[in-house]
Amino acid sequence: MQEFSIIEQYFTNQTQPRRDVLVGVGDDCAITQIPENHVLATTTDTLVSGIHFLPETNPADIAHKALAVNLSDLAAMGATPAWVSLALTLPDANEDWLSEFADSFARLCEYYSINLIGGDTTRGPLSITITAQGFVPPDSVIKRSGARPGDAIFVTGTLGDAGAGLGLLKETLTEENVALDSLAASYLLLRHNTPTPRVLAGTTLRRKVSSCIDISDGLIGDIQHIMKASQCGANINVGALPISNELLSFVSPEYAIELALSAGDDYELLFTVPQDQIEEVKTAMHSVSIPITQIGQMTGDGELHLKQNNQAYITQASAYQHEIPLHG
Amino acid sequence: MQEFSIIEQYFTNQTQPRRDVLVGVGDDCAITQIPENHVLATTTDTLVSGIHFLPETNPADIAHKALAVNLSDLAAMGATPAWVSLALTLPDANEDWLSEFADSFARLCEYYSINLIGGDTTRGPLSITITAQGFVPPDSVIKRSGARPGDAIFVTGTLGDAGAGLGLLKETLTEENVALDSLAASYLLLRHNTPTPRVLAGTTLRRKVSSCIDISDGLIGDIQHIMKASQCGANINVGALPISNELLSFVSPEYAIELALSAGDDYELLFTVPQDQIEEVKTAMHSVSIPITQIGQMTGDGELHLKQNNQAYITQASAYQHEIPLHG
Repeated sequence: MQEFSIIEQYFTNQTQPRRDVLVGVGDDCAITQIPENHVLATTTDTLVSGIHFLPETNPADIAHKALAVNLSDLAAMGATPAWVSLALTLPDANEDWLSEFADSFARLCEYYSINLIGGDTTRGPLSITITAQGFVPPDSVIKRSGARPGDAIFVTGTLGDAGAGLGLLKETLTEENVALDSLAASYLLLRHNTPTPRVLAGTTLRRKVSSCIDISDGLIGDIQHIMKASQCGANINVGALPISNELLSFVSPEYAIELALSAGDDYELLFTVPQDQIEEVKTAMHSVSIPITQIGQMTGDGELHLKQNNQAYITQASAYQHEIPLHG
Repeated sequence: MQEFSIIEQYFTNQTQPRRDVLVGVGDDCAITQIPENHVLATTTDTLVSGIHFLPETNPADIAHKALAVNLSDLAAMGATPAWVSLALTLPDANEDWLSEFADSFARLCEYYSINLIGGDTTRGPLSITITAQGFVPPDSVIKRSGARPGDAIFVTGTLGDAGAGLGLLKETLTEENVALDSLAASYLLLRHNTPTPRVLAGTTLRRKVSSCIDISDGLIGDIQHIMKASQCGANINVGALPISNELLSFVSPEYAIELALSAGDDYELLFTVPQDQIEEVKTAMHSVSIPITQIGQMTGDGELHLKQNNQAYITQASAYQHEIPLHG
C-alpha cells in the first residue's frame, strides 16, 4: 500500500472537522488558524516498539498512548490542544492493525475535539512520532522555570500506577501476590496502556501556578527538571505521595512509594503554587473534580530532599530514562 | 546518553535565536508567535535509512535532506519557513555522527533563518522525522486544487538529476559511460544528497499561480496529485522538459526524459499558471534568478497525456513510491 492512500483511507474523515483547519490532510502542508491573541504550543514525541511499549501491545493502546503523551505535554504548558500530525513507520501494512490503530486514534481526537492535519507513513520497524499543536494566551503559558523557594509542590491524581501496570505485563509483580485482584489489575494495566492526559487540569491551572511539568520520567526525574529550570531545590514528603488503593492491593506501601518516585509514565501534572494562590488552585481544581495533593515545597538550597516522618528517605530509584529498555 | 542531553548538547545554541520563539527547546512544548494576519503551515516527513537514503550516506547529507524535504513542502504552499521539530531515532549515540548531523542541520537552519524548537531522541533503527512550521497570509496559500483547464504547467530548475545521482551511488549508471565526468558526477550526487528546497520560489509565486506541488515522487506522480485535487487533465510535452547538461553528459536524451518523468527526489516546484498571469510569473521569477520552464497545459479531460513532437510518448515509468526500496 502506498503512503498517500494509508493516511487517506484510514485516518481522514473520522472526526468532526475543526473550522480553524483551512487545509487538512492531502496537500503539501496543513494550513491552520491560531485564534487572535494566542501563541502556538508545539511538542513532538516518538514511541518505539520494544522501548516505549512492549512489542505485543495492541494497536489501539499504542495509538492512544502515542497521542496521549503528546497531549500531556500541551497540558503541562497550559495549552488547549488543536491539531496533530502523525508519522507512522510500520513493518508492513496490515489492514486489521491499521484499522484498530486508526479507530483508537480517532476516538481520542474526537474526545478532545482535535484534528489530524497531516502525516507520513513509511516502512520500517514500528515507531510512531506525533507532533501535537495547541494554543494558549501568551500571559497564560506555564513554564518549568517559574518556581520560587516557598512555593508548594502539588501533583494531580495518583502516582506509581503505570509502573505497576508495566510490572504486571512483565510479570515481575505477580509472584508477591497470592490473590490477584482482577479489577485492580485492570485499573493498573489501563493506567499503563492508556494514560489520560491532564488537558483540563492544564488549562485550569493557567495563571494560578508558577511552574508545571507532566510526569513521564518519574517524580524524582521530573521535579529535578523544574528545579534546574527554576534554579531551586525541593523537599518532597514521601509519606504524602498519593497512592491508589489499587496499587496498595498489589504491593507493599514501601514499594508503592518507590514506584511513585521513579517508575514514570503516569502522565499526571506536577506543579508549583505560590503560597497566596494555594486556596484558589484548590478551589479551581475542586470545581473541575480533579484531585490534587500537596507533596512538598520548593526551597532555595538547590538540592532535592526526600523526607518521611521528618527523616531523610533513602531510595535506590533514579529517574526513568526512555533510552533504557523497559524495566520491570 | 540520555534523550534530554542529546538535544541540548548537540542541537541548541547553534543558530541565531528568532524573536518569535518565546519558549524553545527544554520545556514540555515550544511556544511560538505567528505574525498577525498570517496562518500556520505545518508539514511532517519521515526519512528511514535504507528506504529514503542509502545506509552508507554521511550524517551531514542525511540531516540536510531530512530538513530540505520538509522545507520544500512549505515552499510548495507559498509559506515562509520558521520553526522545526526533530525526532531522531538512532541505533547508538555515536558522538562523531551526532556532531556532523547537528552541524549540517544547524547550517541549513541558519541559511533559512529558522530555529529548532523541539525534539525527541530515541534508540532504534535510524530514522528522522521532522515537522516544519511556517506561515503565510491566508489569501496567499497555494493549494494543489486551484488548477483550471488552460492553465500553463511550469517547473523550476531541471529534472532527473537526483535520480541520476542515486543511479551513480548504486552504480547502475557507470557501465554505460566510458569517461566519467567528475564535475558532472559531483553535481548529480549533490542534487541527490543535498536537494535545495525552493523556498524563495514558493513565496515569489504567491497570488500568481493557481496550484503548486513539490516534485518528490516524480513529475508523472506529482502532476497527477494536482490533476486529482483540481479535477483536471494535463498534457505534458516531454520534449520541453528541462534537462541539465550534467545529466546529458551521463545518459542518453531518452533515458534523461525517463528520469525526469519518474525518478523523483528533485524537489523542484511544479505549478500551474492562468494564461493572463504567465508574463507576471516569468518576470517575478526572472527577478529572483530562478529558472522556470513551461512543460505543458492543464486540460478538461481528466487524463494525463505525454507528448513528444505532437505524438503520444510511451513510458514504462510510474510514480516513484517511497514504500518501495531504493531503485536504480
